[in-house]
Amino acid sequence: MGSRETQTLIINTALQLFNEHSSGAVSTNRVAEACDISKGNLHYHFKTKKEIIQSIFKCISDEMNESWYQDHLDPTVSHMAEMFARQLLLIHNYRFFYREMPALLRSDPVLLRRYQETRDKRMTALEEYFSALSRSNVLDFKNNDALIDSLIVSTWIISDNWLNYIEFKKYEATSEKILEGYVMMLDIFRPYFTQPWDEVLSESLTAIKDAIDNK
Amino acid sequence: MGSRETQTLIINTALQLFNEHSSGAVSTNRVAEACDISKGNLHYHFKTKKEIIQSIFKCISDEMNESWYQDHLDPTVSHMAEMFARQLLLIHNYRFFYREMPALLRSDPVLLRRYQETRDKRMTALEEYFSALSRSNVLDFKNNDALIDSLIVSTWIISDNWLNYIEFKKYEATSEKILEGYVMMLDIFRPYFTQPWDEVLSESLTAIKDAIDNK
Repeated sequence: MGSRETQTLIINTALQLFNEHSSGAVSTNRVAEACDISKGNLHYHFKTKKEIIQSIFKCISDEMNESWYQDHLDPTVSHMAEMFARQLLLIHNYRFFYREMPALLRSDPVLLRRYQETRDKRMTALEEYFSALSRSNVLDFKNNDALIDSLIVSTWIISDNWLNYIEFKKYEATSEKILEGYVMMLDIFRPYFTQPWDEVLSESLTAIKDAIDNK
Repeated sequence: MGSRETQTLIINTALQLFNEHSSGAVSTNRVAEACDISKGNLHYHFKTKKEIIQSIFKCISDEMNESWYQDHLDPTVSHMAEMFARQLLLIHNYRFFYREMPALLRSDPVLLRRYQETRDKRMTALEEYFSALSRSNVLDFKNNDALIDSLIVSTWIISDNWLNYIEFKKYEATSEKILEGYVMMLDIFRPYFTQPWDEVLSESLTAIKDAIDNK
Protein backbone atom coordinates (compact mmCIF):
# COMPACT_ATOMS: atom_id res chain seq x y z
CA MET A 1 0.00 0.00 0.00
CA GLY A 2 1.42 3.39 -1.01
CA SER A 3 1.94 6.28 1.37
CA ARG A 4 -1.07 8.23 0.07
CA GLU A 5 -3.32 5.16 0.34
CA THR A 6 -2.22 4.53 3.93
CA GLN A 7 -3.00 8.14 4.86
CA THR A 8 -6.44 7.90 3.30
CA LEU A 9 -7.10 4.62 5.10
CA ILE A 10 -6.08 6.15 8.44
CA ILE A 11 -8.25 9.23 7.92
CA ASN A 12 -11.32 7.24 6.84
CA THR A 13 -10.94 4.70 9.64
CA ALA A 14 -10.42 7.42 12.26
CA LEU A 15 -13.47 9.33 11.00
CA GLN A 16 -15.63 6.20 11.29
CA LEU A 17 -14.38 5.42 14.82
CA PHE A 18 -14.65 9.06 16.00
CA ASN A 19 -18.21 9.29 14.64
CA GLU A 20 -19.12 6.12 16.50
CA HIS A 21 -17.29 6.64 19.82
CA SER A 22 -16.11 10.32 19.92
CA SER A 23 -12.53 11.41 19.27
CA GLY A 24 -11.70 11.47 22.99
CA ALA A 25 -12.59 7.78 23.40
CA VAL A 26 -10.47 6.50 20.49
CA SER A 27 -6.66 6.30 20.82
CA THR A 28 -4.30 6.47 17.83
CA ASN A 29 -3.30 2.88 18.68
CA ARG A 30 -6.89 1.79 18.25
CA VAL A 31 -6.99 3.54 14.87
CA ALA A 32 -3.80 1.69 13.85
CA GLU A 33 -5.32 -1.64 14.93
CA ALA A 34 -8.53 -0.99 12.99
CA CYS A 35 -6.40 -0.14 9.91
CA ASP A 36 -4.38 -3.31 10.43
CA ILE A 37 -1.11 -1.35 10.36
CA SER A 38 1.61 -0.98 13.01
CA LYS A 39 1.62 1.85 15.57
CA GLY A 40 4.95 2.94 14.06
CA ASN A 41 3.47 3.15 10.59
CA LEU A 42 0.57 5.30 11.83
CA HIS A 43 2.99 7.48 13.80
CA TYR A 44 5.08 7.95 10.64
CA HIS A 45 2.05 9.58 8.95
CA PHE A 46 0.45 11.32 11.95
CA LYS A 47 2.42 12.31 15.05
CA THR A 48 -0.70 12.98 17.14
CA LYS A 49 -4.46 12.60 17.17
CA LYS A 50 -4.67 16.37 16.62
CA GLU A 51 -2.94 15.90 13.25
CA ILE A 52 -5.50 13.26 12.26
CA ILE A 53 -8.33 15.61 13.22
CA GLN A 54 -6.69 18.45 11.25
CA SER A 55 -6.55 16.15 8.20
CA ILE A 56 -10.21 15.22 8.65
CA PHE A 57 -11.05 18.92 8.77
CA LYS A 58 -9.04 19.35 5.56
CA CYS A 59 -11.38 16.77 3.95
CA ILE A 60 -14.32 18.96 5.04
CA SER A 61 -12.85 22.13 3.51
CA ASP A 62 -11.66 20.28 0.38
CA GLU A 63 -15.19 19.00 -0.13
CA MET A 64 -16.49 22.57 0.17
CA ASN A 65 -13.81 23.96 -2.17
CA GLU A 66 -14.44 21.31 -4.79
CA SER A 67 -17.98 22.29 -5.74
CA TRP A 68 -19.50 24.69 -3.23
CA TYR A 69 -18.48 27.97 -4.83
CA GLN A 70 -20.73 28.00 -7.90
CA ASP A 71 -24.00 28.43 -5.98
CA HIS A 72 -24.54 32.08 -6.89
CA LEU A 73 -25.01 30.95 -10.52
CA ASP A 74 -28.26 29.21 -9.55
CA PRO A 75 -30.38 31.49 -7.32
CA THR A 76 -33.58 29.41 -7.09
CA VAL A 77 -35.73 27.97 -4.31
CA SER A 78 -34.73 24.41 -5.15
CA HIS A 79 -31.01 25.14 -5.38
CA MET A 80 -31.19 26.96 -2.05
CA ALA A 81 -32.63 23.76 -0.52
CA GLU A 82 -29.99 21.63 -2.26
CA MET A 83 -27.26 23.89 -0.88
CA PHE A 84 -28.42 23.66 2.74
CA ALA A 85 -29.14 19.92 2.39
CA ARG A 86 -25.54 19.44 1.19
CA GLN A 87 -24.29 21.35 4.24
CA LEU A 88 -26.44 19.30 6.63
CA LEU A 89 -25.40 15.99 5.04
CA LEU A 90 -21.74 16.99 5.34
CA ILE A 91 -22.35 17.66 9.05
CA HIS A 92 -23.88 14.19 9.28
CA ASN A 93 -20.87 12.59 7.55
CA TYR A 94 -18.39 14.35 9.83
CA ARG A 95 -20.64 14.33 12.88
CA PHE A 96 -17.97 13.85 15.54
CA PHE A 97 -16.45 17.18 14.45
CA TYR A 98 -19.73 19.10 14.76
CA ARG A 99 -20.64 17.35 18.02
CA GLU A 100 -17.30 18.16 19.64
CA MET A 101 -16.56 21.41 17.82
CA PRO A 102 -16.28 23.84 20.77
CA ALA A 103 -13.87 21.55 22.66
CA LEU A 104 -11.84 20.68 19.53
CA LEU A 105 -11.46 24.32 18.47
CA ARG A 106 -10.46 25.44 21.97
CA SER A 107 -7.81 22.73 22.30
CA ASP A 108 -6.07 23.28 18.93
CA PRO A 109 -5.16 26.79 17.71
CA VAL A 110 -4.19 25.43 14.26
CA LEU A 111 -7.61 23.81 13.82
CA LEU A 112 -9.32 26.96 15.12
CA ARG A 113 -7.49 29.14 12.55
CA ARG A 114 -8.46 26.80 9.71
CA TYR A 115 -12.07 26.65 10.91
CA GLN A 116 -12.17 30.47 11.03
CA GLU A 117 -10.75 30.77 7.50
CA THR A 118 -13.29 28.27 6.16
CA ARG A 119 -16.14 29.94 8.03
CA ASP A 120 -15.22 33.40 6.71
CA LYS A 121 -15.00 32.08 3.17
CA ARG A 122 -18.35 30.27 3.47
CA MET A 123 -19.98 33.30 5.07
CA THR A 124 -18.90 35.47 2.12
CA ALA A 125 -20.26 32.87 -0.31
CA LEU A 126 -23.57 32.78 1.58
CA GLU A 127 -23.84 36.57 1.48
CA GLU A 128 -23.16 36.42 -2.25
CA TYR A 129 -25.79 33.71 -2.67
CA PHE A 130 -28.47 35.64 -0.80
CA SER A 131 -27.62 38.76 -2.82
CA ALA A 132 -28.18 36.69 -5.96
CA LEU A 133 -31.52 35.43 -4.56
CA SER A 134 -32.50 39.09 -3.94
CA ARG A 135 -31.39 40.25 -7.40
CA SER A 136 -33.42 37.41 -8.97
CA ASN A 137 -36.37 38.43 -6.81
CA VAL A 138 -36.69 34.96 -5.26
CA LEU A 139 -36.41 36.69 -1.88
CA ASP A 140 -37.31 40.32 -1.28
CA PHE A 141 -35.47 41.88 1.66
CA LYS A 142 -36.35 45.46 0.55
CA ASN A 143 -32.62 46.13 0.03
CA ASN A 144 -31.87 45.66 3.71
CA ASP A 145 -28.33 44.20 3.60
CA ALA A 146 -27.86 44.33 7.37
CA LEU A 147 -30.97 42.18 7.79
CA ILE A 148 -29.70 39.62 5.25
CA ASP A 149 -26.37 39.36 7.09
CA SER A 150 -28.11 38.97 10.42
CA LEU A 151 -30.36 36.15 9.15
CA ILE A 152 -27.35 34.41 7.56
CA VAL A 153 -25.50 34.40 10.90
CA SER A 154 -28.64 32.96 12.54
CA THR A 155 -28.88 30.11 10.04
CA TRP A 156 -25.13 29.51 10.35
CA ILE A 157 -25.35 29.05 14.12
CA ILE A 158 -28.41 26.80 13.76
CA SER A 159 -26.75 24.68 11.07
CA ASP A 160 -23.49 24.18 13.04
CA ASN A 161 -25.37 23.21 16.21
CA TRP A 162 -28.44 21.42 14.89
CA LEU A 163 -26.88 17.96 15.34
CA ASN A 164 -26.27 18.53 19.06
CA TYR A 165 -29.77 19.95 19.44
CA ILE A 166 -31.47 16.88 18.00
CA GLU A 167 -29.20 14.42 19.80
CA PHE A 168 -29.85 16.10 23.16
CA LYS A 169 -33.56 15.84 22.29
CA LYS A 170 -32.88 12.05 22.19
CA TYR A 171 -33.59 11.86 18.47
CA GLU A 172 -31.39 9.62 16.40
CA ALA A 173 -29.37 11.76 13.99
CA THR A 174 -30.42 10.07 10.75
CA SER A 175 -29.91 12.02 7.53
CA GLU A 176 -33.72 12.49 7.34
CA LYS A 177 -33.84 13.98 10.84
CA ILE A 178 -30.83 16.17 10.08
CA LEU A 179 -32.56 17.54 6.99
CA GLU A 180 -35.58 18.65 9.06
CA GLY A 181 -33.22 21.41 10.16
CA TYR A 182 -33.58 22.96 6.75
CA VAL A 183 -37.36 23.35 7.03
CA MET A 184 -36.75 25.15 10.32
CA MET A 185 -34.18 27.46 8.74
CA LEU A 186 -36.54 28.04 5.82
CA ASP A 187 -39.14 29.36 8.29
CA ILE A 188 -36.73 32.20 9.12
CA PHE A 189 -36.81 33.33 5.46
CA ARG A 190 -40.51 32.57 5.01
CA PRO A 191 -41.79 36.19 5.02
CA TYR A 192 -39.33 37.21 2.28
CA PHE A 193 -40.18 34.68 -0.44
CA THR A 194 -42.00 36.28 -3.38
CA GLN A 195 -43.54 32.94 -4.47
CA PRO A 196 -46.49 31.49 -2.50
CA TRP A 197 -45.26 29.57 0.58
CA ASP A 198 -46.90 26.28 -0.50
CA GLU A 199 -44.84 26.30 -3.69
CA VAL A 200 -41.64 27.23 -1.83
CA LEU A 201 -42.15 24.40 0.64
CA SER A 202 -43.03 21.82 -2.01
CA GLU A 203 -40.04 22.71 -4.25
CA SER A 204 -37.76 22.66 -1.21
CA LEU A 205 -38.97 19.27 0.02
CA THR A 206 -38.51 17.77 -3.45
CA ALA A 207 -34.94 19.09 -3.59
CA ILE A 208 -34.23 17.69 -0.11
CA LYS A 209 -35.66 14.30 -1.04
CA ASP A 210 -33.41 14.23 -4.11
CA ALA A 211 -30.43 15.13 -1.93
CA ILE A 212 -31.16 12.16 0.37
CA ASP A 213 -31.66 9.77 -2.56
CA ASN A 214 -28.42 10.85 -4.26
CA LYS A 215 -26.20 10.96 -1.20
CA MET B 1 -17.69 28.16 58.53
CA GLY B 2 -20.91 26.08 58.35
CA SER B 3 -21.47 23.22 55.94
CA ARG B 4 -23.83 25.25 53.71
CA GLU B 5 -21.37 28.17 53.57
CA THR B 6 -18.51 25.85 52.61
CA GLN B 7 -20.58 24.35 49.78
CA THR B 8 -21.49 27.81 48.47
CA LEU B 9 -17.83 28.87 48.66
CA ILE B 10 -16.74 25.78 46.70
CA ILE B 11 -19.41 26.28 44.03
CA ASN B 12 -18.67 30.00 43.58
CA THR B 13 -14.92 29.47 43.50
CA ALA B 14 -15.19 26.58 41.03
CA LEU B 15 -17.49 28.62 38.77
CA GLN B 16 -14.97 31.49 38.71
CA LEU B 17 -12.03 29.15 37.95
CA PHE B 18 -13.97 27.14 35.32
CA ASN B 19 -15.09 30.38 33.60
CA GLU B 20 -11.49 31.55 33.50
CA HIS B 21 -9.66 28.32 32.60
CA SER B 22 -12.34 25.75 31.52
CA SER B 23 -13.55 22.90 33.74
CA GLY B 24 -11.09 20.45 32.17
CA ALA B 25 -8.07 22.54 33.15
CA VAL B 26 -9.04 22.97 36.82
CA SER B 27 -8.63 20.07 39.27
CA THR B 28 -10.71 19.71 42.43
CA ASN B 29 -7.46 20.14 44.39
CA ARG B 30 -6.97 23.53 42.79
CA VAL B 31 -10.52 24.48 43.76
CA ALA B 32 -9.79 23.43 47.36
CA GLU B 33 -6.60 25.53 47.40
CA ALA B 34 -8.40 28.58 46.02
CA CYS B 35 -11.07 28.12 48.74
CA ASP B 36 -8.33 27.78 51.36
CA ILE B 37 -9.81 24.50 52.61
CA SER B 38 -8.29 21.01 52.76
CA LYS B 39 -8.70 18.46 49.94
CA GLY B 40 -10.50 16.23 52.45
CA ASN B 41 -12.98 18.95 53.32
CA LEU B 42 -13.79 19.54 49.63
CA HIS B 43 -14.10 15.79 49.08
CA TYR B 44 -16.53 15.58 52.01
CA HIS B 45 -18.88 17.94 50.12
CA PHE B 46 -18.22 16.86 46.53
CA LYS B 47 -16.87 13.42 45.61
CA THR B 48 -16.01 14.42 42.03
CA LYS B 49 -15.73 17.39 39.68
CA LYS B 50 -18.92 16.11 38.01
CA GLU B 51 -20.81 16.69 41.29
CA ILE B 52 -19.51 20.27 41.44
CA ILE B 53 -20.66 20.87 37.86
CA GLN B 54 -24.07 19.34 38.66
CA SER B 55 -24.37 21.77 41.60
CA ILE B 56 -23.42 24.69 39.36
CA PHE B 57 -26.12 23.60 36.92
CA LYS B 58 -28.54 23.50 39.86
CA CYS B 59 -27.71 27.19 40.47
CA ILE B 60 -28.65 27.87 36.84
CA SER B 61 -32.01 26.11 37.10
CA ASP B 62 -32.71 27.58 40.57
CA GLU B 63 -32.12 31.04 39.13
CA MET B 64 -34.61 30.26 36.35
CA ASN B 65 -37.18 28.79 38.76
CA GLU B 66 -36.95 31.74 41.14
CA SER B 67 -38.33 34.42 38.83
CA TRP B 68 -38.47 33.26 35.22
CA TYR B 69 -41.96 31.81 35.17
CA GLN B 70 -44.07 34.98 35.40
CA ASP B 71 -43.15 36.29 31.94
CA HIS B 72 -46.51 35.52 30.30
CA LEU B 73 -48.08 38.15 32.59
CA ASP B 74 -46.17 40.88 30.73
CA PRO B 75 -46.39 40.33 26.95
CA THR B 76 -44.71 43.54 25.72
CA VAL B 77 -41.82 44.42 23.42
CA SER B 78 -39.70 45.68 26.30
CA HIS B 79 -40.38 42.68 28.55
CA MET B 80 -39.52 40.36 25.66
CA ALA B 81 -36.13 42.13 25.42
CA GLU B 82 -35.66 41.96 29.20
CA MET B 83 -36.41 38.24 29.13
CA PHE B 84 -33.84 37.43 26.44
CA ALA B 85 -31.29 39.80 27.99
CA ARG B 86 -31.70 37.93 31.29
CA GLN B 87 -31.07 34.63 29.48
CA LEU B 88 -27.97 35.96 27.70
CA LEU B 89 -26.56 37.47 30.91
CA LEU B 90 -27.06 34.13 32.69
CA ILE B 91 -25.10 32.46 29.88
CA HIS B 92 -22.37 35.05 30.44
CA ASN B 93 -22.29 34.38 34.20
CA TYR B 94 -22.08 30.60 33.70
CA ARG B 95 -20.06 30.82 30.49
CA PHE B 96 -17.90 27.71 31.02
CA PHE B 97 -21.09 25.62 30.99
CA TYR B 98 -22.35 27.06 27.70
CA ARG B 99 -18.87 26.92 26.11
CA GLU B 100 -18.38 23.27 27.03
CA MET B 101 -22.01 22.15 26.95
CA PRO B 102 -21.87 19.39 24.31
CA ALA B 103 -18.88 17.70 25.97
CA LEU B 104 -20.29 18.10 29.49
CA LEU B 105 -23.71 16.71 28.55
CA ARG B 106 -22.20 13.74 26.69
CA SER B 107 -19.94 12.82 29.61
CA ASP B 108 -22.56 12.93 32.37
CA PRO B 109 -26.00 11.29 31.96
CA VAL B 110 -27.26 12.86 35.21
CA LEU B 111 -26.38 16.35 33.97
CA LEU B 112 -27.91 15.59 30.56
CA ARG B 113 -31.21 14.51 32.15
CA ARG B 114 -31.35 17.68 34.26
CA TYR B 115 -30.49 19.84 31.25
CA GLN B 116 -33.26 18.16 29.24
CA GLU B 117 -35.80 18.70 32.03
CA THR B 118 -34.86 22.37 32.32
CA ARG B 119 -34.89 22.84 28.53
CA ASP B 120 -38.35 21.26 28.20
CA LYS B 121 -39.72 23.43 31.00
CA ARG B 122 -38.19 26.59 29.47
CA MET B 123 -39.41 25.66 25.99
CA THR B 124 -43.00 25.33 27.31
CA ALA B 125 -42.66 28.70 29.05
CA LEU B 126 -41.37 30.29 25.83
CA GLU B 127 -44.29 28.84 23.85
CA GLU B 128 -46.65 30.24 26.47
CA TYR B 129 -44.91 33.63 26.29
CA PHE B 130 -45.14 33.84 22.51
CA SER B 131 -48.81 32.81 22.67
CA ALA B 132 -49.36 35.71 25.09
CA LEU B 133 -47.52 38.07 22.69
CA SER B 134 -49.83 36.85 19.91
CA ARG B 135 -52.99 37.22 22.02
CA SER B 136 -51.95 40.78 22.94
CA ASN B 137 -51.30 41.47 19.26
CA VAL B 138 -47.67 42.48 19.89
CA LEU B 139 -46.72 39.83 17.32
CA ASP B 140 -49.03 38.58 14.60
CA PHE B 141 -48.24 35.06 13.40
CA LYS B 142 -51.67 34.67 11.68
CA ASN B 143 -52.47 31.83 14.13
CA ASN B 144 -49.67 29.67 12.77
CA ASP B 145 -48.61 27.76 15.91
CA ALA B 146 -46.19 25.48 14.06
CA LEU B 147 -44.35 28.56 12.79
CA ILE B 148 -44.10 30.01 16.32
CA ASP B 149 -42.67 26.73 17.64
CA SER B 150 -40.15 26.56 14.79
CA LEU B 151 -38.92 30.13 15.40
CA ILE B 152 -38.66 29.46 19.15
CA VAL B 153 -36.41 26.44 18.50
CA SER B 154 -34.27 28.60 16.20
CA THR B 155 -33.81 31.30 18.85
CA TRP B 156 -33.13 28.61 21.46
CA ILE B 157 -30.27 27.12 19.43
CA ILE B 158 -28.85 30.59 18.70
CA SER B 159 -29.06 31.62 22.34
CA ASP B 160 -27.35 28.44 23.67
CA ASN B 161 -24.53 28.71 21.10
CA TRP B 162 -24.08 32.46 20.67
CA LEU B 163 -21.19 32.62 23.17
CA ASN B 164 -19.14 30.08 21.21
CA TYR B 165 -19.97 31.86 17.97
CA ILE B 166 -18.67 35.23 19.15
CA GLU B 167 -15.62 33.75 20.87
CA PHE B 168 -14.63 31.83 17.73
CA LYS B 169 -15.04 35.16 15.88
CA LYS B 170 -12.29 36.38 18.25
CA TYR B 171 -14.61 38.84 19.95
CA GLU B 172 -14.30 39.22 23.68
CA ALA B 173 -17.48 37.94 25.33
CA THR B 174 -18.38 41.07 27.30
CA SER B 175 -21.97 41.38 28.49
CA GLU B 176 -22.49 44.13 25.83
CA LYS B 177 -21.27 41.83 23.05
CA ILE B 178 -23.39 38.97 24.38
CA LEU B 179 -26.48 41.16 24.29
CA GLU B 180 -25.96 41.92 20.58
CA GLY B 181 -27.26 38.38 20.16
CA TYR B 182 -30.70 39.63 21.09
CA VAL B 183 -30.84 42.13 18.22
CA MET B 184 -30.00 39.25 15.89
CA MET B 185 -32.73 37.06 17.36
CA LEU B 186 -35.14 40.01 17.15
CA ASP B 187 -34.51 40.14 13.39
CA ILE B 188 -36.06 36.67 13.12
CA PHE B 189 -39.33 38.02 14.58
CA ARG B 190 -39.10 41.34 12.73
CA PRO B 191 -41.81 40.66 10.11
CA TYR B 192 -44.36 39.73 12.78
CA PHE B 193 -44.30 42.83 14.99
CA THR B 194 -47.47 44.91 14.64
CA GLN B 195 -45.72 48.10 15.87
CA PRO B 196 -43.34 49.99 13.52
CA TRP B 197 -39.85 48.42 13.55
CA ASP B 198 -38.13 51.65 14.69
CA GLU B 199 -40.23 51.66 17.85
CA VAL B 200 -39.67 47.94 18.46
CA LEU B 201 -35.91 48.39 18.14
CA SER B 202 -35.76 51.49 20.30
CA GLU B 203 -37.89 49.97 23.11
CA SER B 204 -35.81 46.78 22.94
CA LEU B 205 -32.47 48.59 23.13
CA THR B 206 -33.67 50.64 26.11
CA ALA B 207 -34.70 47.44 27.92
CA ILE B 208 -31.34 45.84 27.13
CA LYS B 209 -29.42 48.89 28.36
CA ASP B 210 -31.41 48.74 31.62
CA ALA B 211 -30.61 45.03 31.93
CA ILE B 212 -26.86 45.79 31.62
CA ASP B 213 -27.04 48.67 34.11
CA ASN B 214 -28.95 46.60 36.66
CA LYS B 215 -27.00 43.39 36.38
